[in-house]
Amino acid sequence: MSTTYTIGRYLVDRLGELGIRHIFGVPGDYNLSFLDTIIEQPALEWVGNCNELNAAYAADGYARIHGIAALVTTFGVGELSAVNGIAGSRAEQVPVVKITGSPASKVAEEGRLVHHTLGDGEFNHFSKMYKEVTAAQTTLTAENATEEIDRVLRTCWYEKAPVYINLPVDIHGLPAKQPKEPLLKEDSAASANTISEMLETLIPVIEKAKSPVILADYQVSRFHGEEALKRFVEATGFPIATLSMGKGVFNEEHPQFIGVYSGKTSPDYLRNRIDHADCIISIGVKFTDSITSGFSQGFKEESVIHIAPKEVNYRNEVYSKIAMDESLKQLAGMLKKREEQSLNIIPVTEQQREEPFYVKDDQALTQKRFWEMIRLFIQKDDVVVADQGTSFFGAQTVPLKENVTYIGQPLWGSIGYTLPATLGAQLADLSRRNLLLIGDGAFQLTFQEISTMLRENLHPIIFVINNDGYTVERSIHGPEASYNDIKMWRYADIPAALGGNKNFKSYKTNTEGEFADALKDIAESPDVLRFVEVVTQKMDMPELLTTLGKIFAAQND
Amino acid sequence: MSTTYTIGRYLVDRLGELGIRHIFGVPGDYNLSFLDTIIEQPALEWVGNCNELNAAYAADGYARIHGIAALVTTFGVGELSAVNGIAGSRAEQVPVVKITGSPASKVAEEGRLVHHTLGDGEFNHFSKMYKEVTAAQTTLTAENATEEIDRVLRTCWYEKAPVYINLPVDIHGLPAKQPKEPLLKEDSAASANTISEMLETLIPVIEKAKSPVILADYQVSRFHGEEALKRFVEATGFPIATLSMGKGVFNEEHPQFIGVYSGKTSPDYLRNRIDHADCIISIGVKFTDSITSGFSQGFKEESVIHIAPKEVNYRNEVYSKIAMDESLKQLAGMLKKREEQSLNIIPVTEQQREEPFYVKDDQALTQKRFWEMIRLFIQKDDVVVADQGTSFFGAQTVPLKENVTYIGQPLWGSIGYTLPATLGAQLADLSRRNLLLIGDGAFQLTFQEISTMLRENLHPIIFVINNDGYTVERSIHGPEASYNDIKMWRYADIPAALGGNKNFKSYKTNTEGEFADALKDIAESPDVLRFVEVVTQKMDMPELLTTLGKIFAAQND
Repeated sequence: MSTTYTIGRYLVDRLGELGIRHIFGVPGDYNLSFLDTIIEQPALEWVGNCNELNAAYAADGYARIHGIAALVTTFGVGELSAVNGIAGSRAEQVPVVKITGSPASKVAEEGRLVHHTLGDGEFNHFSKMYKEVTAAQTTLTAENATEEIDRVLRTCWYEKAPVYINLPVDIHGLPAKQPKEPLLKEDSAASANTISEMLETLIPVIEKAKSPVILADYQVSRFHGEEALKRFVEATGFPIATLSMGKGVFNEEHPQFIGVYSGKTSPDYLRNRIDHADCIISIGVKFTDSITSGFSQGFKEESVIHIAPKEVNYRNEVYSKIAMDESLKQLAGMLKKREEQSLNIIPVTEQQREEPFYVKDDQALTQKRFWEMIRLFIQKDDVVVADQGTSFFGAQTVPLKENVTYIGQPLWGSIGYTLPATLGAQLADLSRRNLLLIGDGAFQLTFQEISTMLRENLHPIIFVINNDGYTVERSIHGPEASYNDIKMWRYADIPAALGGNKNFKSYKTNTEGEFADALKDIAESPDVLRFVEVVTQKMDMPELLTTLGKIFAAQND
Repeated sequence: MSTTYTIGRYLVDRLGELGIRHIFGVPGDYNLSFLDTIIEQPALEWVGNCNELNAAYAADGYARIHGIAALVTTFGVGELSAVNGIAGSRAEQVPVVKITGSPASKVAEEGRLVHHTLGDGEFNHFSKMYKEVTAAQTTLTAENATEEIDRVLRTCWYEKAPVYINLPVDIHGLPAKQPKEPLLKEDSAASANTISEMLETLIPVIEKAKSPVILADYQVSRFHGEEALKRFVEATGFPIATLSMGKGVFNEEHPQFIGVYSGKTSPDYLRNRIDHADCIISIGVKFTDSITSGFSQGFKEESVIHIAPKEVNYRNEVYSKIAMDESLKQLAGMLKKREEQSLNIIPVTEQQREEPFYVKDDQALTQKRFWEMIRLFIQKDDVVVADQGTSFFGAQTVPLKENVTYIGQPLWGSIGYTLPATLGAQLADLSRRNLLLIGDGAFQLTFQEISTMLRENLHPIIFVINNDGYTVERSIHGPEASYNDIKMWRYADIPAALGGNKNFKSYKTNTEGEFADALKDIAESPDVLRFVEVVTQKMDMPELLTTLGKIFAAQND
């Protein structure tokens, strides 16, 4: 163990200061000696992944639960394999620190033709590529290291965006000074004037609204505004809906929660309530195609007050540098709670009253019945991870119990993302039950990360929906086309082949009875990884996806 | 089936003209309707891969056997997953056409926040990234499509480099004119003057050399110069060595073949013969770190005549625009064959006389004995694919029989590359036996592509060397460090789990006897995929790798 305080140590200490306890990645000769610094820290665990894309996905999942994450790969081959995962973090505003162990500075300066380069003497191709998908980039040197580390980590934290650190193999072992100041400073607060102006404009607008409604989305989760949101909702008495990307940022059993809004595919009550609202308080929302059924939201832009992570915006008037939770707190403080009948609140819990559910033992399992059974199975405090196929669109309509976190990727939409993301999410909080819902097509992209779950003795519950191909693509184009077919695997045998021993249980279910038995057994076997192959029909899909497939097909014309 | 001739049809016809019979990739909603055009062509087969990185690797392997390849992915998520494979093709000069199905032109023009974008309204992030790793790029429009397709495909073919085609989903179906001229034109030939000058300078240099020697490398294979090389070698009578990246470009059983040169780690005779040669005719060589044991070649630059793919270069005098095979033909025509004793040719076949090999049945298998048995197993016309770990460095020293093609990736060095590359190589020529040699660590990155081999009923022979971790990294740093450990899998059970039925045979071998039995059975079961798990010790590695590990560690200091 090295006794001098080094640049590498400085970096891992700063990551530790941000609460990072696990670092993901794959070893390579340009990062091996830095990995020594990681494994020397008792508070940090190195989590080696099966490949770099999976490492990036795992880091993203970890960050969504833990607030921030880091991964280390080698130069060229490693970082390019990871780049799709990092781009996903960029699209969905997830703070991930991407560290690349790169060739020695002198090797790069001399432009030597070393392995993991294009053999053209240029060493900046890959950092230029990362510039497109990260919010800050740096190449560490003996002189700039500590300052640059602080700069990019702050960007990562405050902008909720991935950043890129190029760490040459000869640099991390050089001496550095220990940090004296904390990494994070208070966000520059808005001036009292801006806040007053904002309140003066908005309070009358909100007070005179006849049918105000709150729409909340994923940025509430990224910027840790859940508590402020809850207080705002309860202080106003307004109904609240989320978009599917932000599903779970508000307790779906709350009496003011009216559903997950998705534009014209929303249930009638919800669509009418939102589209005809005279005041929409939109909190941390981004209107993208997948979550609005192809931009089919029906309300008027002039009715919308946008409360963004760092500003408020109403009818093109911008009140800048106000943090989301500050805006919510200030507004909540000025508004009186309204409880009049005209707010027309029908909670989801009343819209979809739970009918008694009777399992039909020998009935082949359908998507419809599957999601009803999953609804009953999900518990308070669960983490539900749903891949961007039938899973996401099926899970979207399942009401969640209190404090359930929902993870999906509706904007970036990289299939296969969720399996490694579940590894990350589960490591980020071992006390919560993680449920993964993933289709067979998506599973085939990244499933080797089950190996890492088994090695780490994690206990997620994995549902692989085996519908014999890319059903989400079939919904858009080519329902019977050969390119939407995939090889049929023996899914239930996978955990054993990947080295699972006594630390997993595997099930294959075709009927409601078999699935119900599996769910019962799962509830009684909390200390192992649970793997359930759920067989459904090829063209059986959640209703929402059937509609959405047609909308996407039209968008492509 | 569409009856108008379309832009999409033009593209697939041009690919067909280049000899492409298989197109790799993964479907996504922005490419589905273009895939219809592919599957409508009876001469083309769509080969869906488990993920996009694997598709890129498979295309690279296909191109190495077939001359060129193509793959199709979707925008953003798909193309970024593939980019490491394309960068490898760029580094190692493999012509691959990367086609991205992208959102409709109007969607991009309007900067809409659609899925598979970063949600910032910018649609050119990913094409900018591809610019770093491809030789030409284009975004097709109604106006430019046929011209642009021809331009980038010519670059791909003539420069032996990957190219990038961005194909918006609304463009490929627009009408186009069928091609009238062939895609490929004659390379612009050198002027007779340049050739005369080249010959006037070089012929005397070569004639008066006392110890001339030929060094050939991978560019001979990429630019299809094997025949010209063979005629040149036989016309001159000079000894020939290759570098490991070009291993197999010349028949290793030929009486003039003296070995695979690797700088200071070469066997004594070979090192002396090359390092002290007074004239080195270097044909299609690039001196990179992995193949020269860290730039340890010992000869003088002034002794080297460089015959590059498109020019000849001697002591900084450049004779440009002469194709490699033209240079070789011209030089061969002017040189008299020399057969004097002083050429000091000891063929590899004499350096390493095959000792009778007796299998010791109960002896645990070592790397040394494994490679001796593999040597005896390899046949004329085989394709041998070796991953960049113990496999590549072990296979490097195995003399190959006539017409054996050797595939590795010593410059880019992306572990896991070879498994999907074997899928591509095998599809490119079903008549040849494909042998894959891959370590357990590398296998875990990309092994799902065995599923595609099984689906396509291919019959490669896969050797997975199970030495319990990243042994190539252990050789460089951290032999006992936890980051070089991986989860132990039940490798031999994998083909069945991935849906193999009667179309595979699986073996697990610990001893020489078991391995010999497996090899015997394999030779007798040609019509199935063969999968052999070969157990060796964690720190047992080919001698060459032991030395090279130390050299790479020093390069990183």
